[in-house]
Amino acid sequence: MAGRAEPINVQALIFDIFGTVVDWRSSLIEDFTAWSTTRGISGDWTGLVDAWRQAYVPSMDDVRKNPGRGFIKLDDLHRRSLEQLAPQFGLTDLTEDDLRYITTGWHRLKPWPDSVAGLTRLKTKYIISPLSNGNVGLLTRMAKNAGLPWDLILGGDVFGHYKPDPQTYLGAARLLNLPPEQVMMVAAHNNDLDAAQKLGLKTAFVPRVTEYGPLQKIDFDATGDWDVVADDFGALADRLGC
Amino acid sequence: MAGRAEPINVQALIFDIFGTVVDWRSSLIEDFTAWSTTRGISGDWTGLVDAWRQAYVPSMDDVRKNPGRGFIKLDDLHRRSLEQLAPQFGLTDLTEDDLRYITTGWHRLKPWPDSVAGLTRLKTKYIISPLSNGNVGLLTRMAKNAGLPWDLILGGDVFGHYKPDPQTYLGAARLLNLPPEQVMMVAAHNNDLDAAQKLGLKTAFVPRVTEYGPLQKIDFDATGDWDVVADDFGALADRLGC
Repeated sequence: MAGRAEPINVQALIFDIFGTVVDWRSSLIEDFTAWSTTRGISGDWTGLVDAWRQAYVPSMDDVRKNPGRGFIKLDDLHRRSLEQLAPQFGLTDLTEDDLRYITTGWHRLKPWPDSVAGLTRLKTKYIISPLSNGNVGLLTRMAKNAGLPWDLILGGDVFGHYKPDPQTYLGAARLLNLPPEQVMMVAAHNNDLDAAQKLGLKTAFVPRVTEYGPLQKIDFDATGDWDVVADDFGALADRLGC
Repeated sequence: MAGRAEPINVQALIFDIFGTVVDWRSSLIEDFTAWSTTRGISGDWTGLVDAWRQAYVPSMDDVRKNPGRGFIKLDDLHRRSLEQLAPQFGLTDLTEDDLRYITTGWHRLKPWPDSVAGLTRLKTKYIISPLSNGNVGLLTRMAKNAGLPWDLILGGDVFGHYKPDPQTYLGAARLLNLPPEQVMMVAAHNNDLDAAQKLGLKTAFVPRVTEYGPLQKIDFDATGDWDVVADDFGALADRLGC
């Protein structure tokens, strides 16, 4: 793998979650397909999940453009987008309980096969935390469901901002009592690392080339000069001396 | 034991830290006594530690009374109080490294004997987190040093407020996606529980009658109508069905 050769002096690793640590697309499609069979309803779950994720960035932009309305946590953005999209995918008679079950699908996402073992190794030497646009309540329940061994949980609602706003990366460093250069952002998304690097954080790219399934168009490879590029979290732990 | 008989429906337990989970007084005195012998300096460590803790509440009040200066995290208040107090206890030639070592003594506090085992049981059924006036960086390092198995870390700097300000208790419930009545505050201090109860949180009192050593004057017993009173975290886990 690529990556610079000099030793890396960081004390904390902060992780993008959706796509980097957990496989949101397969998890949601499998969860809803199995659940809907029992529940006796049908719909185009793959279509819904892909459209739901496509609504993600615009829904955060809407929060940014309307600061007077205050910050809205991701669980609430997910619920709002779901209600708008469901009818387009044959889901017209969802009850309140159904909507709640589907929205909290994001609390039940499954890790990539290497995630838990890699994080467990990395935790022996570093502080490990999410730095996610997910809210703390979502990320906490995901961690308990999936066995993700975080030291702490940092989500968008701690900062009142979504990545790539600088308040998230710099806020994480501040809460960790660390200068940005002693914090490493780990992500499967080059744009996340680009924002972190511009603010002085170290960066690690771990590609997850099946994240978007057949819709994957970018992030097959590192496109920036990241401090580490590793195939998976095991290789990242190797590279960081764990 | 006392405590109400009806079942308690909470999803998260939030813990006071200094005195409730860790034994700050004995930990600091032992740490500094052992370290100073090696370092070749001497001072009245017991006197310093007791005076340092007595400066704690006034130092937070000073932050409250001067909101224009912004929130100051507890590590920084500790450092400031230490510099003011050290000369009174025979510590006149401390270097920058010494001051840093002593200030981060609060990162190295030892848990009460029942804390880790009790928390580990409670974590199987509930979300567990500190709700402490300590800052996130302090609490995270304490947890790693002491093996405290938190699901997440909530400290004063997340909210920009110190307990008993309502923003801390209500902020914790908000970040946890829970109404206050589904969150239980666990503390060895009746005043902390009183503030939490007035805001609708559930409450558990666990007495730590040696916290202040010979200076202990209050909190030998429950003085409010708390939902649970338990001798230690093992008894708390029993009472909460873990």
